[in-house]
Amino acid sequence: MGKSPEEEHPVKAFGWAARDTSGVLSPFKFTRRETGDEDVRFKVLYCGICHSDLHCVKNEWGNSTYPMVPGHEIVGVVTEVGCKVQKFKVGDKVGVGCMVGACHSCDSCENNLENYCPKMLLTYNSPYYDGTNTYGGYSDHMVTSERYVVRIPDSLPLDAAAPLLCAGITTYSPLRYYGLDKPGMNVGVVGLGGLGHVAVKFAKAFGTKVTVISTSLRKKQEAIEQLGADSFLVSTDPDQMQAAMGTLDGIIDTVSATHPLLPLLGLLKCNGKLVLLGVPEKPFELPAFPLILGRKMVGGSGIGGMKETQEMIDFAAEHNVTPFIEVVPVDYLNTAMQRLAKADVKYRFVLDIGNTLKAD
Amino acid sequence: MGKSPEEEHPVKAFGWAARDTSGVLSPFKFTRRETGDEDVRFKVLYCGICHSDLHCVKNEWGNSTYPMVPGHEIVGVVTEVGCKVQKFKVGDKVGVGCMVGACHSCDSCENNLENYCPKMLLTYNSPYYDGTNTYGGYSDHMVTSERYVVRIPDSLPLDAAAPLLCAGITTYSPLRYYGLDKPGMNVGVVGLGGLGHVAVKFAKAFGTKVTVISTSLRKKQEAIEQLGADSFLVSTDPDQMQAAMGTLDGIIDTVSATHPLLPLLGLLKCNGKLVLLGVPEKPFELPAFPLILGRKMVGGSGIGGMKETQEMIDFAAEHNVTPFIEVVPVDYLNTAMQRLAKADVKYRFVLDIGNTLKAD
Repeated sequence: MGKSPEEEHPVKAFGWAARDTSGVLSPFKFTRRETGDEDVRFKVLYCGICHSDLHCVKNEWGNSTYPMVPGHEIVGVVTEVGCKVQKFKVGDKVGVGCMVGACHSCDSCENNLENYCPKMLLTYNSPYYDGTNTYGGYSDHMVTSERYVVRIPDSLPLDAAAPLLCAGITTYSPLRYYGLDKPGMNVGVVGLGGLGHVAVKFAKAFGTKVTVISTSLRKKQEAIEQLGADSFLVSTDPDQMQAAMGTLDGIIDTVSATHPLLPLLGLLKCNGKLVLLGVPEKPFELPAFPLILGRKMVGGSGIGGMKETQEMIDFAAEHNVTPFIEVVPVDYLNTAMQRLAKADVKYRFVLDIGNTLKAD
Repeated sequence: MGKSPEEEHPVKAFGWAARDTSGVLSPFKFTRRETGDEDVRFKVLYCGICHSDLHCVKNEWGNSTYPMVPGHEIVGVVTEVGCKVQKFKVGDKVGVGCMVGACHSCDSCENNLENYCPKMLLTYNSPYYDGTNTYGGYSDHMVTSERYVVRIPDSLPLDAAAPLLCAGITTYSPLRYYGLDKPGMNVGVVGLGGLGHVAVKFAKAFGTKVTVISTSLRKKQEAIEQLGADSFLVSTDPDQMQAAMGTLDGIIDTVSATHPLLPLLGLLKCNGKLVLLGVPEKPFELPAFPLILGRKMVGGSGIGGMKETQEMIDFAAEHNVTPFIEVVPVDYLNTAMQRLAKADVKYRFVLDIGNTLKAD
């Protein structure tokens, strides 16, 4: 028992791993399983650096196991498929997002919502069925059940497609589910980071009018000129907030620090929906009055199912929705993590695995 | 300026009023307007005592003006109609609920949701268009624009119909709006008072399976045997709560004291909805995790529009949904208020205005 990562499986793999809570990652040799009957193996070309990678690396959610190979915004090219694989063949451009397994028999799974399956397995830092830990996309290749693989259309640039696998589906799915995808609607987006900037792009692609809500005026120009937002609200300006009361059909709130919900609920029209995507450590304060006087609601959403993830990717390709990224070499990873901790990125780092990951 | 209540309008009226925050009401002479072109005047026969009457009498929401004639669960028989009234004639059985006016031009009004109109006027304790205060149903007669009058079908007993005008619509509307009205669904009801017991009855009438959730076992027998609930959960019993995790499609929460939402969110299935009807003084604590991991939502709802109120009354008549009431004479009012403050009523006091209100 207790084989080392280098000998658990027959296929050699190489990546970068966190070994402890320091936040520093370093080169790491491990192994991956053989290509199972329903598995797709692919060479990783790009992998986005999601903020949750940073949380996990530092064990900020308290459930990290080391060594950990993060990365759940993974794209690449298929190198091998199992005998029962139907949807993919060698040479296909594919992606893997946040999950690689689920029970496939619960209500959620039967409704194509594997993301809400209580037995959902994460792409990294999760115990897989064979007893080993899952390793993510900061690595030379992946092997994944085809159910968790999506096709990347040729028209999407592979590097910019990577963040769609997490940031994309995490914002697309609630816009759809909460009905905030109708042309002419007024949709707010709180926070203009990795998630928020993609939310703006999808909301615009749906034909809605987008208001970006931020604590400072600093991001106004880029929100309007580069992302195409229709207006910008400084949440700390009482006059601006007062003037915008009751104007929004819904708000996608991407901020993961605790913040007051009351001003956001005030921005909503009657029947408006506030959708939380971030998970602060402490609970929010929720006043009941605005919910009752305006039949408003506060909901949540977490990534999306595989069927919807493919739909999202196809929609992004068709409507030219691509995240703004900064592509960096793998040996820049620790610097990127430090900059990410300071929100010093517009808006997503993407590791150029294909060209810069060297097994030395 | 500053006419007394006895001379503001030409038509003499008589009722019981609160004069201060003491919680005590006493006989009160005042006047009501002449029957306008679109007005319906009716003799009040019964009026429910809603818990919000008690809040207002004691100025617990800080917006009370005195003298105040409470009462917004009012039924009676039409005695006069204005020349433009189309839906009602003398002798009709009618009811008036929580509101008597709105702007009729905003989005909410245009969607038959006068209850969410920012200019909605309450049946009592509200400044009317003519500058006088509105007086409610603890009185011998009412005069109200026909838009705010509903027809009471003959098959509904008038005394038991009264609480439907507030408690009825307040529970019917969210069951409908949040889609908790499909046969076979599992619906929870928190709190078994004036609102809660009607929520159970409507939810059963929709064909759902109803779980009553209460802090003590005390109400189990009546919930199951008298109200027809399918099961009963003691919220302070961790084993019971654990066993019921993830079983409910939605919860109607009628409790108006602050209480933990996390255990209730835990009872919800994926996509489940927690609907708050009570307004505690302090905000709730809202953890984001259950919302995001199960796409759950917390919403609110406040009474309902006039179109839906008529629909609710007709549904109640058709499905024999009648509140459980204790009919009391008007001179029992102060005792009833004291008992209501202790939740000592099953489940609604109704004043027998027609037989016991005496102008002495």
